Amino acid sequence: MKIINSLEWRYATKKFDPAKKLSNQQIDTLKNAFNLTPTSFGLQPLKLIVIENKELQEKFIELSYFQRQVADASHLLIICVENDTTTKDINAYFDLEKEIRNVDETVIANFRKQLIEMYANKTAEERKLSAVYQAYIALGNLMTVCAVENIDACPLEGFIPQKVDELLNLKSLNLSSVLLLPVGIRANDDIMSTLKKVRKPLNEMIINIS
Amino acid sequence: MKIINSLEWRYATKKFDPAKKLSNQQIDTLKNAFNLTPTSFGLQPLKLIVIENKELQEKFIELSYFQRQVADASHLLIICVENDTTTKDINAYFDLEKEIRNVDETVIANFRKQLIEMYANKTAEERKLSAVYQAYIALGNLMTVCAVENIDACPLEGFIPQKVDELLNLKSLNLSSVLLLPVGIRANDDIMSTLKKVRKPLNEMIINIS
Repeated sequence: MKIINSLEWRYATKKFDPAKKLSNQQIDTLKNAFNLTPTSFGLQPLKLIVIENKELQEKFIELSYFQRQVADASHLLIICVENDTTTKDINAYFDLEKEIRNVDETVIANFRKQLIEMYANKTAEERKLSAVYQAYIALGNLMTVCAVENIDACPLEGFIPQKVDELLNLKSLNLSSVLLLPVGIRANDDIMSTLKKVRKPLNEMIINIS
Repeated sequence: MKIINSLEWRYATKKFDPAKKLSNQQIDTLKNAFNLTPTSFGLQPLKLIVIENKELQEKFIELSYFQRQVADASHLLIICVENDTTTKDINAYFDLEKEIRNVDETVIANFRKQLIEMYANKTAEERKLSAVYQAYIALGNLMTVCAVENIDACPLEGFIPQKVDELLNLKSLNLSSVLLLPVGIRANDDIMSTLKKVRKPLNEMIINIS
């Protein structure tokens, strides 16, 4: 149950030590873990922005309802989605699969056609929402990886995405920000780190059917 | 980078060995990990159904577009959301916090009031969507925990939630099914386990700003 100890160790860090930095190796682990996030049909409609720039991070304080973690953390991660998933994106996935797995078009042609049709039959809103769901999978994955690697993190839904998108000119990249995840090392005096975790009793969360 | 090796090891299992069962300890780990999933404001608007019943699992094959994993897996997990997050739920959270952390009402009264107002100002659809986002965090968490624990899993968005809700009479529990996660041990001849992982190059997924 080592993994459970790791999950018990983590908490939404309220105060980072601004003098302590994560190592390049730790950041590389988070980047690779993000890229290994499982996504719907493997389409990866996501991008991770990794900010290590105090001046820029300070600008996020106002955009996140004055939660200082965005500036004090070693790095500020932003999970973004592509604004649409197009036939071009789906074709790019299958082309990549062919290259990596050395498979022939005849093997995948049917599924390629089906998936293109499936996405074309969705509305733009449905395609965007599906991408946002994948962003939350990435958040769940990253928070658990942080816990395993003893990296402190604070997931933030509470910020103004439109202003973040403007600040980073994300529209020009066809991206929208979905989630902020400041990562770093907790301050010694973060009182939140000493509090017991609040969770419902297990029997209220689990329904067993056997 | 042991965690990266674990994430490389996992894949969406296409064929489980129906004769191999996960141990009680492995299932306990998954249940506890689910309960430790970080959720928005700690409200945990989620439930995990854990099915270990071949007859019942067989009924899911038709409801999941004939993906046999739901029946062949050792256990079928279903991540559900509560259909609404009410003032009662928010009060229950703060009451639990008071009990676990032994804090006085005066400390939390303001935040309690704010959070109740915030949720009352959302539409029912917004509250439900927020819960669904948390279900995806739980999925991301559980898939990574499975990877760390060498448990095979296959996340499924592709099923008919209404029919699952009917089959399990979830309406009477005020729940809706969101995601299926069969877990178990891969079959020796699952060809998918031998294929290389398809992921975009890291530099296409990450934007560094320093």
